Amino acid sequence: MARTSIKKLSGGGITTPKGFVAGASSCGIKPGGRKSRKDLCMIYSKNPCVAAGTFTKNRIKAAPVKLSQIHLQRGNPQLIIANSGNANCATGERGNMDAQAMAQQAGEALGVQTNAVLVCSTGIIGVPMPMDRILSGIPKLAGELSRSGGPDAAEAIMTSDTHPKTVAVRVSDTKGDTYSIGAIAKGAGMIRPDMATMLSFVTTDVGIEKKVLRAITREVVDLSFNRITVDGDMSTNDTVLVLANGASGAVVDEGVVGEEDEELFRTALTRVMQTLAKMLVSDGERVTKLVEVRVTGAATERDARWVAEAVANSTLCKCSWNGGDPNWGRVLHAVGYANARLTESRVGISFGGIPACVDGVDAQTPIEKLQEVVAKPEFTVGIDLGLGNETCVMWTSDLSPEYVDFNRAEYALSRGRKK
Amino acid sequence: MARTSIKKLSGGGITTPKGFVAGASSCGIKPGGRKSRKDLCMIYSKNPCVAAGTFTKNRIKAAPVKLSQIHLQRGNPQLIIANSGNANCATGERGNMDAQAMAQQAGEALGVQTNAVLVCSTGIIGVPMPMDRILSGIPKLAGELSRSGGPDAAEAIMTSDTHPKTVAVRVSDTKGDTYSIGAIAKGAGMIRPDMATMLSFVTTDVGIEKKVLRAITREVVDLSFNRITVDGDMSTNDTVLVLANGASGAVVDEGVVGEEDEELFRTALTRVMQTLAKMLVSDGERVTKLVEVRVTGAATERDARWVAEAVANSTLCKCSWNGGDPNWGRVLHAVGYANARLTESRVGISFGGIPACVDGVDAQTPIEKLQEVVAKPEFTVGIDLGLGNETCVMWTSDLSPEYVDFNRAEYALSRGRKK
Repeated sequence: MARTSIKKLSGGGITTPKGFVAGASSCGIKPGGRKSRKDLCMIYSKNPCVAAGTFTKNRIKAAPVKLSQIHLQRGNPQLIIANSGNANCATGERGNMDAQAMAQQAGEALGVQTNAVLVCSTGIIGVPMPMDRILSGIPKLAGELSRSGGPDAAEAIMTSDTHPKTVAVRVSDTKGDTYSIGAIAKGAGMIRPDMATMLSFVTTDVGIEKKVLRAITREVVDLSFNRITVDGDMSTNDTVLVLANGASGAVVDEGVVGEEDEELFRTALTRVMQTLAKMLVSDGERVTKLVEVRVTGAATERDARWVAEAVANSTLCKCSWNGGDPNWGRVLHAVGYANARLTESRVGISFGGIPACVDGVDAQTPIEKLQEVVAKPEFTVGIDLGLGNETCVMWTSDLSPEYVDFNRAEYALSRGRKK
Repeated sequence: MARTSIKKLSGGGITTPKGFVAGASSCGIKPGGRKSRKDLCMIYSKNPCVAAGTFTKNRIKAAPVKLSQIHLQRGNPQLIIANSGNANCATGERGNMDAQAMAQQAGEALGVQTNAVLVCSTGIIGVPMPMDRILSGIPKLAGELSRSGGPDAAEAIMTSDTHPKTVAVRVSDTKGDTYSIGAIAKGAGMIRPDMATMLSFVTTDVGIEKKVLRAITREVVDLSFNRITVDGDMSTNDTVLVLANGASGAVVDEGVVGEEDEELFRTALTRVMQTLAKMLVSDGERVTKLVEVRVTGAATERDARWVAEAVANSTLCKCSWNGGDPNWGRVLHAVGYANARLTESRVGISFGGIPACVDGVDAQTPIEKLQEVVAKPEFTVGIDLGLGNETCVMWTSDLSPEYVDFNRAEYALSRGRKK
């Protein structure tokens, strides 16, 4: 049995796995029509893929989300088309037809059946898509897809992100075979558990059964994109798509060592998705800190999760971190309203491993020591409930005055610009 | 049967009902010891009272909350002692003893049993109470209580409030008798359903049975203080106390017209508590707008409440209101994640009664008309789900860059000042 490894590939991305090409163009979809910004992209596999996806749990779902859910059920997807600038959400029946038209035109341009096309949109809600620009942009873009188009695709899905997010790993499995996983994501603002406004597309050239890919994707999304939060809101367009085309010849789930190779793939995908998830938090709108909330000692898994979510989403905790303030009282009060089993006299709170609160009262640590930790751009808030063995980790950010300022008048601005 | 009425008394307050006196002093409890600010107050009834209270649902409860809950169960309270500047929370066994000592010393000073004293504290968490200052301040304060001490008491419970909050009404009942209800409250910051950091004390000179007073108090708190939100956090010290001493001779729940008089009392108490609740939102930390979220057409009461809470607590909605931005897409997406029964094509959203979204899509109202509404200091966001007859109203605020700035480093500052 060969020695296994997972290696991060610097410079790798969504077209690192064999058989995938990508590209992007500028159609002027973004309100104001800044033509220089990329806003339409495609990711195409030469072979039909085994695919998995997770979608927003918001009961208002954008038209492309509904369409992609259906296409994922039906076929073996081969193509993703995604645009930024307009979410195609709250656009009624017309929105459904527009999403359908995008799938159809993109499919025709590459000789792929409409139901093998997955569609994603992100941007403003409630404004009809500028379909003339999109439809006229598709054929040209389809002709330009290439092995080097990954970075362009990562750029084309950005909205308020300040930089594209991309990652790739190479995996050597127990049989000595190698394959890659590549991925891009966009987020920034409105990030929270259940995958607020975020898109992530993952490609891999490993061979894997649909059932296995779907189970692993659900599991790994829950350990990564569902563990991050910036502002507690949840969007209408969130989508994670994973496409596996088998082009490397490596296979995950066969033979006597299948189980071990499955575990290896799960670990590799977790690394890919957690890396992107943390990038999304760090690049949240006007965020200055990446904070890991680490809950231990919970009586149940659910309790651990509830406490982590309460602290990670607390406006007052996030404000204090922005100010570099090791305010353990605010952490404690968020722990208190999480609705988890709790014994006040057992709760411990630490910043960067340094105790701030022990047995529910002040640990008497000199405040300067704690301030040093919270002044850093990345730190961990530890919460030990002292009741059991269950744990939960989440990643969150601070909340800055600049975030609020940035989010004050986006809609009026973007509507205004259109005129 | 006499004609009933409820009249607001300008200049009235917590000592308007007969038999109540109040007063406040400056003990230097607030960190930094700004001696000029009032920080300790008492409200005393010459007769034992029938009393009701509601308390924070946070599982971390401050010592005085736990003590007052017990005293409310046991006796007929006659005295409230409250301080600002220190919450006596996360202070361990010492905190419990300190709360007990406050009750005992205050009771002794006025010849009242310890378990007839209710204790409230608000302020910083996790710092032991400066008991020397408090205990030495009590006897002097007890000697200074008067019929004109209401405004001082309202001032003494303030923390980051910018002004004291007080209200009083006079009620004429079906028997031609009259009585008053007076009240004070403090809030500002950390206001949310389930009564985040807020205190409210209500006095009345009507006679009422304990069981009736408790049922009505629970009900009215749920329609007032539990319907407001500023930042989605929930504190460890929230307390609403209602004391009824019967000194007016008017009686709520007796005779053949008891039911009607009960309804009258409920209405009067609702007016008092809703007035204070809205004052709390308006005076939230660095708040510029009071927004009424009015949900109609929900399939169930619970659905109506969930939708109202989701919108009222949405960071992104609150940012947009701060910017005067009629962003109905953000309202819709919050409606979507509220987890209520929902048919997208039936949802209507309005600002100040002017439709912004009809049947789930843009109402095509000129944006200037909607901007005019959202520019106002008070406006209503209407959400009609078009599914049933259930409704819910909540009051919330915008979220300003100044709020975040204000909350960045409170703890470090207050700790720093102490040295």
